[in-house]
Amino acid sequence: MGNIYSERIEALRKKMESEGLAAVIIPQADAHLSEYLAPYWQVRRWFTGFTGSAGDLVVTKDGAFLWTDSRYFLQAGRQLADTGVELMKDGLVSTPSIEQYLANHLSKGQRLGLDGMLFSAGRLQGLKDVLEPKGISIDCHYDPVGGMWKDRPALPDGKIYVHDEKYSGESARNKISKILAFSAEKGAGACFISALDDIAWTLNIRCDDVKHTPVATSFLFLCEGDNILYVDDSKLTDDLRSYLQSQGVVTRPYKDVQAALGSLPEGLKVLVEPSHTSGGIMDILGNRAVPVSFGPAALFKSCKNDIQISGIRKAMERDGVALVKSFYELEQRIASGTETTEMDVAEILHRHRSAGEHYKDESFGTIAGYGPHGAIVHYEADSESNSHLKAEGLLLVDSGAQYLDGTTDITRTICLGKATAEEKRDFTLVMKGHIALATMMFPDDTRGAQLDAIARQYLWRNGLSYLHGTGHGVGHFLGVHEGPQSIRLNYVDTPLQAGMITSNEPGLYRENVHGIRCENLVLCQKALENEFGTFLKFETLTLCPFDLQLFDTEIMSDEEISWLNNYHAMVADRIMPLLDDDNLKTWLKEHTQPLTR
Amino acid sequence: MGNIYSERIEALRKKMESEGLAAVIIPQADAHLSEYLAPYWQVRRWFTGFTGSAGDLVVTKDGAFLWTDSRYFLQAGRQLADTGVELMKDGLVSTPSIEQYLANHLSKGQRLGLDGMLFSAGRLQGLKDVLEPKGISIDCHYDPVGGMWKDRPALPDGKIYVHDEKYSGESARNKISKILAFSAEKGAGACFISALDDIAWTLNIRCDDVKHTPVATSFLFLCEGDNILYVDDSKLTDDLRSYLQSQGVVTRPYKDVQAALGSLPEGLKVLVEPSHTSGGIMDILGNRAVPVSFGPAALFKSCKNDIQISGIRKAMERDGVALVKSFYELEQRIASGTETTEMDVAEILHRHRSAGEHYKDESFGTIAGYGPHGAIVHYEADSESNSHLKAEGLLLVDSGAQYLDGTTDITRTICLGKATAEEKRDFTLVMKGHIALATMMFPDDTRGAQLDAIARQYLWRNGLSYLHGTGHGVGHFLGVHEGPQSIRLNYVDTPLQAGMITSNEPGLYRENVHGIRCENLVLCQKALENEFGTFLKFETLTLCPFDLQLFDTEIMSDEEISWLNNYHAMVADRIMPLLDDDNLKTWLKEHTQPLTR
Repeated sequence: MGNIYSERIEALRKKMESEGLAAVIIPQADAHLSEYLAPYWQVRRWFTGFTGSAGDLVVTKDGAFLWTDSRYFLQAGRQLADTGVELMKDGLVSTPSIEQYLANHLSKGQRLGLDGMLFSAGRLQGLKDVLEPKGISIDCHYDPVGGMWKDRPALPDGKIYVHDEKYSGESARNKISKILAFSAEKGAGACFISALDDIAWTLNIRCDDVKHTPVATSFLFLCEGDNILYVDDSKLTDDLRSYLQSQGVVTRPYKDVQAALGSLPEGLKVLVEPSHTSGGIMDILGNRAVPVSFGPAALFKSCKNDIQISGIRKAMERDGVALVKSFYELEQRIASGTETTEMDVAEILHRHRSAGEHYKDESFGTIAGYGPHGAIVHYEADSESNSHLKAEGLLLVDSGAQYLDGTTDITRTICLGKATAEEKRDFTLVMKGHIALATMMFPDDTRGAQLDAIARQYLWRNGLSYLHGTGHGVGHFLGVHEGPQSIRLNYVDTPLQAGMITSNEPGLYRENVHGIRCENLVLCQKALENEFGTFLKFETLTLCPFDLQLFDTEIMSDEEISWLNNYHAMVADRIMPLLDDDNLKTWLKEHTQPLTR
Repeated sequence: MGNIYSERIEALRKKMESEGLAAVIIPQADAHLSEYLAPYWQVRRWFTGFTGSAGDLVVTKDGAFLWTDSRYFLQAGRQLADTGVELMKDGLVSTPSIEQYLANHLSKGQRLGLDGMLFSAGRLQGLKDVLEPKGISIDCHYDPVGGMWKDRPALPDGKIYVHDEKYSGESARNKISKILAFSAEKGAGACFISALDDIAWTLNIRCDDVKHTPVATSFLFLCEGDNILYVDDSKLTDDLRSYLQSQGVVTRPYKDVQAALGSLPEGLKVLVEPSHTSGGIMDILGNRAVPVSFGPAALFKSCKNDIQISGIRKAMERDGVALVKSFYELEQRIASGTETTEMDVAEILHRHRSAGEHYKDESFGTIAGYGPHGAIVHYEADSESNSHLKAEGLLLVDSGAQYLDGTTDITRTICLGKATAEEKRDFTLVMKGHIALATMMFPDDTRGAQLDAIARQYLWRNGLSYLHGTGHGVGHFLGVHEGPQSIRLNYVDTPLQAGMITSNEPGLYRENVHGIRCENLVLCQKALENEFGTFLKFETLTLCPFDLQLFDTEIMSDEEISWLNNYHAMVADRIMPLLDDDNLKTWLKEHTQPLTR
């Protein structure tokens, strides 16, 4: 009856009672609205034991509820057993939203507690709009943990280091000038940045505060002659301090940021990106805030310069070598009957990648999904689920690395036995979309939703589809997911621009059967200019063979076959000289031979 | 030195002076924000002589300016010569908007006059937002014409007639119930409709007030037990009155609508579609208005019922017969060297169509553009431009008809001589997009901007494009352009839905060379439902051969060739039995023979 989590929630409930709160929301979030969280911010996980990357906890006087989406229904069901926390399946018509639930279950005069620093301004406003008319008040400065979490990890104290201009291609001082010029154009004398990857990009700094994303926990305030990085002293070295000084940036303690924003000079307007700034910060800024949909750091960061581009091309070669070694090793093991699991696949990739130059980390936890597991889009094998690979069926491997000179992200789907007709057909329909996007030329104001349809058309024609996006932006030795561009069903009002790196990853998932995803990174470039306008195209950056035996040439056009053959020829050209083992060379030659009808 | 138009503007300027106005805007609009205007509303044309369908006149103390878009730069330049009206080329970076211009040229304390009934609420607000902070006030009840236009046409007094339920498929009473139920769901006890086609659809009435679009000048107010059509008595017959009564609708004078809306019962909320309701009306409704992006009449009207669908299929057969006769006659004339002009093409089509059953009107002025004229997207030949056709080059013919059982709109591009390689390549690239869209299957929440990319992809790949939309909604014996769906570059948040009829009309225009457009109407239908969702597809409705000699089979896939052959087989199957002349039968057989490589 109950476990450690139910005890923690009970303790919170006592605390709430003494503080006069009827309900508390504990979101999966940090004060920077990051996608991945440092351990310090894993409060919801501490209260519930649920490890999913999305899901918010609500505790009331007589209940506790976790809202999460369909990716996590199974996992949450398992992890919440015995915690007394009820699973609220987000996205089902029968599931109320958190604000609806609270509006129905709290009464006039009751109070809700939450930490406004962990909610976007929009989300906080949404809660207020629903609850305040009902007479329910919100305390936006509530700390649900208090002293309860005795061994709570400290804020990350990893040392910040400089990301050399020979990789980043532009000085922090220069980027700061551009950001301030952009802000001035919008009528703001200053710019405040909460997003950790935007800060890391602006200052050319990196750190290991967050797994897989080399950012430093900090806030950045930029203002002519008064640029301040709010960051804990423990993270700084003398070298870094003098580097920052050389770029015109001083440091102040991380915890001072709220007070400092509260006492800015009269009349100073501050540019912010509300979607990446917490409601707590927005409340402090009040009418000083000049909101923009996409902040200058995010916009500038998305378009890579020539040095970054030449870096990622080199990183792709190293990544390609590691991939060739990994898939070769995997094939050998399967062929020889050596016991191999999904988790072994992750280990093999990590071993070969980490042996390469400039390697720093994986860019996300490797997804190796065998057979039916491949159909679970966010699958990550654990000791319980870990499948043994056999000489049959499809294996989906989505992985990537952080190198000093670039971030990689690649998915290959390979067949471990003899491919069936259905496997070949499904795979080829996905690849037809991948190739259509890779070879597309398009006018310079084209949005991602338009390109997304190009990649889906062959699946759609066959009554098939996939629910995730076709492409996300990718950082340069930074977040493997970055905005503002994306190629997806939903409309996002940012055209693709020259210099942007985006994934090209259509897929197809048959529940309980198999999953297919084919992902390369592509660089957007100017193609030509004529009387019809300026046109853009993509260059494929990723270097790794696709599984030749999975192609059904019957449903491919000559152009598609020739794109594949040219791509494989390029992979062979660039990777072969980097291999020193004859077995690997033979393997690569076989796996990049031209496909014929 | 000046002409009748400069005299009229000078008279207006005197009137403005006596009334204390520094500027006046005279838009091309009626009080229903219609696309096509009855003669009564052609005020801008009366003041300037400019006949284009878009363009607003601004008169100040010392100048007069006409803002119009690139379609009309040439024509406006010609027509405005000697009027003293300066052409303002809308869309050029160097051209200020009307509000910017007025903000820069009027001073604090000056007044602008306009008729708020001729501006959408959004546009009126845009003017206020820019001018009021500058201390420039706006009189929204200004009539620039006054008594000046002595022979101004009366409001249209054509008789309204009932559009029989055997064509419309649903009673007005039923439609009214659905509209009121929709309004009630949005918290409104009433619904007010300004858009003439929405009113005609709702009440199953038609009239000839506007050229090519069979609508009646009126406003419609719907409220349980109190449905009122505001319409001039002169337009009513006893039969129509009793018909309306039988559907629960009474009539009041057209001019009473503003006063009536101003004295509605306390607390009554009124659903309106601001994009199709004038600022004048919105001001009267004030906070009674419950605004929706797309009104219920527009939404319901866009999805055709089975009777309408079977009607349009029959209308397409009649239209197809007329098209076969017209293209046959045209070919004979060219072959025999009979003098034939662009205007003759329009006459030939009109003659054959109007001989058919249920024919009422053209659905728009025929566009017959020969050679370079084909590249002028909104070209309509007049006695000055009228080209003589020769046995060479491309002729673009865009035309349509209003039948009691449906509205048609078709474009064919034919070669009058031997097609050149460039003509064939251009034409085939356009057709590849046309076929891709015609054969597409797609999930049920797909937006037009996504499908638009499908139709453009082959042009884009070749650095080509076109600036108009790929598809517009089409009414049922109503507007040839109707919303809310559209297939275009710009994002419109309305998914395609089963029952919608839309055009499929990609094109390609080479300035001073030729224009190509290939247009059929397509019906959206449910295709299938499976684990991946519900999928929709198109049925092509239009029945007329494409010019076989313009296809370059080298750049076509087998699937594309077979779509074309199947389409032509269907055209022959359905049209052949309706032809009674052996020459026509032979022509149709030849023009629908299978294309081979």
